[in-house]
Amino acid sequence: MKKLAIITAALASTLTVVGQELPSDANKVIKSLYTEALGEQQGYQWLKYICEEIGPRPSGSDAANEAARWTMQQMLDAGADTAWLQEVEVPKWYRGKEWSKANAGGEWIELPTTALGGSVATPKEGITAEVIEVGSFEALEALGREKVQGKIVFYNTYMDHSLISTFNAYGGAVKYRWAGAMEAVKYGAVATVMRSVTLLRDDLPHTGAMSYGDSEEKIPSAAISWQAADELATMLKAGTPVQLELFLDCGVQGTAMNYNMIADFKGSEKPEEIMLVGGHIDSWDLGQGAQDDGAGCAHAMQVPSLMKSVGYENKRTIRVVLWANEEFGLDGAKEYARWAREQGVHHWVAMESDGGGDVPRGFGIGADDARIEQLRAYKSLLVPYGLHVMAKGGGGADLSPLRGHDDFFIGYRPESQRYFDFHHSARDRIEAIHPRSLEMGSASMSALFYILDQLD
Amino acid sequence: MKKLAIITAALASTLTVVGQELPSDANKVIKSLYTEALGEQQGYQWLKYICEEIGPRPSGSDAANEAARWTMQQMLDAGADTAWLQEVEVPKWYRGKEWSKANAGGEWIELPTTALGGSVATPKEGITAEVIEVGSFEALEALGREKVQGKIVFYNTYMDHSLISTFNAYGGAVKYRWAGAMEAVKYGAVATVMRSVTLLRDDLPHTGAMSYGDSEEKIPSAAISWQAADELATMLKAGTPVQLELFLDCGVQGTAMNYNMIADFKGSEKPEEIMLVGGHIDSWDLGQGAQDDGAGCAHAMQVPSLMKSVGYENKRTIRVVLWANEEFGLDGAKEYARWAREQGVHHWVAMESDGGGDVPRGFGIGADDARIEQLRAYKSLLVPYGLHVMAKGGGGADLSPLRGHDDFFIGYRPESQRYFDFHHSARDRIEAIHPRSLEMGSASMSALFYILDQLD
Repeated sequence: MKKLAIITAALASTLTVVGQELPSDANKVIKSLYTEALGEQQGYQWLKYICEEIGPRPSGSDAANEAARWTMQQMLDAGADTAWLQEVEVPKWYRGKEWSKANAGGEWIELPTTALGGSVATPKEGITAEVIEVGSFEALEALGREKVQGKIVFYNTYMDHSLISTFNAYGGAVKYRWAGAMEAVKYGAVATVMRSVTLLRDDLPHTGAMSYGDSEEKIPSAAISWQAADELATMLKAGTPVQLELFLDCGVQGTAMNYNMIADFKGSEKPEEIMLVGGHIDSWDLGQGAQDDGAGCAHAMQVPSLMKSVGYENKRTIRVVLWANEEFGLDGAKEYARWAREQGVHHWVAMESDGGGDVPRGFGIGADDARIEQLRAYKSLLVPYGLHVMAKGGGGADLSPLRGHDDFFIGYRPESQRYFDFHHSARDRIEAIHPRSLEMGSASMSALFYILDQLD
Repeated sequence: MKKLAIITAALASTLTVVGQELPSDANKVIKSLYTEALGEQQGYQWLKYICEEIGPRPSGSDAANEAARWTMQQMLDAGADTAWLQEVEVPKWYRGKEWSKANAGGEWIELPTTALGGSVATPKEGITAEVIEVGSFEALEALGREKVQGKIVFYNTYMDHSLISTFNAYGGAVKYRWAGAMEAVKYGAVATVMRSVTLLRDDLPHTGAMSYGDSEEKIPSAAISWQAADELATMLKAGTPVQLELFLDCGVQGTAMNYNMIADFKGSEKPEEIMLVGGHIDSWDLGQGAQDDGAGCAHAMQVPSLMKSVGYENKRTIRVVLWANEEFGLDGAKEYARWAREQGVHHWVAMESDGGGDVPRGFGIGADDARIEQLRAYKSLLVPYGLHVMAKGGGGADLSPLRGHDDFFIGYRPESQRYFDFHHSARDRIEAIHPRSLEMGSASMSALFYILDQLD
């Protein structure tokens, strides 16, 4: 079946493939989506407002709510038939001052430092202790309580630079951020610091969610910049014991109410079939959440907006969902999925953009093989726009709570090389976004939704 | 033939395609080239030196010569068997102060301005005249001498934002830069200014070569920033006549000696067959020539260097050529081609990188169809690295003088969306370069050269 479809695609010179023909002007409609996006740059304008006028939108923040309200109004202005805010209870994250410095018997050297999301604060006087470096959980275990007790564990761990997909490299390294504290505490560590999870060899720390798991004892947990980690490693290599002083004022302060933003553009023929497109409205607190995931919000908002602009009438209902608190527990996605199940919502397809705003590479498709082959048959329509990838397996974190309910997921896949330069750091600002690249993403997602809307 | 080859490629599960088998460890060798490039980032370090320590390298500058000497030493250090500098006589370009301001009966408004490369200077008191706007040469002709005489022509011309290849969009707009002055002077214009040839809606002017053709009268010719062009157009729309004051201190000051840098890494089996890889060492003077074409120089230098680093012994001779003065007359490329013809050099293949340092998209191949199909058969080895494009037609400006002598050309094609944001402007600095993206280019070019070195 698979091979047959590939040959069919290679030989076919028309758009009639694997059984279903697109309108004869499909090429023109798709081209017009790109022309509109690249000319008006409406998604970039939206994103600029979210970044510069609203700012970072951490879990539990008023800014997250302001963003939900403002995007709802934009969707109504863009012609949404209905738009509303869905209440989501989320943890309220607080970050105050934070710093660390190291000393190997000489001067104290400051290390750019940030608390990991969810970390407890240090005592008011900070924590000062000897540093012990490990490169893995195995190395930590090998050292054991004897060598770790009373010390600050330094996870000198790396994303694998040799992996071409930086998301894969992230997947291999992020366990030290998530579980570093809960593992180190088993051996009596008093705090942890880690090399930031990034591939850019710069001097900014990158935050992100951590967890204490079932651990009753909670130790402060921070990231230091790449260059600070290099410096600390060099100090340790010299052999003299290194003292680290860590101060973190941060923590979860109960819960707060945030909102999912939901906007429907009603379908003309099958309004009950929902084509969901979304990103998450929350962000970490260090930058402006431009790449993560302001870009995804702009993409999702652009999908129905671009279709309207070029005069396309969607047959199915296009629903934009901007989820609350993805970063710190997926609360928005869980609440949306709970509600959708309760209401018996039928998602014909659900697409997510949470990989940033760089140029398009393609899509990941979470569906059965027949559906994937069906979509691949239309690849020739998308390749001229740089969309070469139609990989098996798709949809991101915010779609995961929908699994088992509806099962046709798509993840937009932009180029990933730069993404972790910005991710969860103060560099994730509007300047991180290239307008044309962002808009090519909006148009690419719209183009695929246009094709999907034609299919039975 | 074509269709058959595509099917063969789709069905083939081994690397035996279109007649020629690669070594069984081909995948491993290619992977190792990427791992080495992304780990060591040697190309990025070279480029950083060229940009920050040497700086801009305009035609006739000492900096261009310093770059030629420095890169020659790097090539010798990297294991080149021979390296030398080839003399090239080039025009010496000079740029001093430059500015313009506009007035529509109120205050004078400053417009970020730069002389086009090759423009004559204004008189010392500048030129002040009324501005007349045109959107095309046809519009200029329609206005005629009556309306143009004595005025400054403002080419409010655009790159076509709807084109996905920004190089195609550049191709459509650059004629107003090249020929704007020679056309305007026919109708008695006293100077020209133009909207910078860029897609970024920013406030920096972009320079680039212009020509007076056969025109005996030479009028000063400048570019203003995108935002300045918007402002000027708004002023003109209001209806009141707009005065423009233009001052340019610039010009060609005779000739100077620059150098092509040529380094050979001798082949073990067919040393007389040259695999040429190159970029141009010169740049415009406003930035540091990072994207244009420091990136291409770093790419070219990395090709033999990466191969050596991973222990690959090239069968054919790999020759790195960094050409003098591409920007302002192709002098280096012409001199190299002249010399190569004279010497009877046989270039088995020649590859150029002059599209910047963004992530790889693929290659353009200038060869007969059989050769292109042969290379496409190895595409599955390259696709995992984002190299999806193997287009017909390749090789850039610096390879053009070789045409008719040898005829197998390859142009490396990185992602083009950001390129014209930087191109010929003060923004073309090392900060414009993303280290991993640059190095993926180096590895991609090395990988293709590795495959080519295996073929008969």
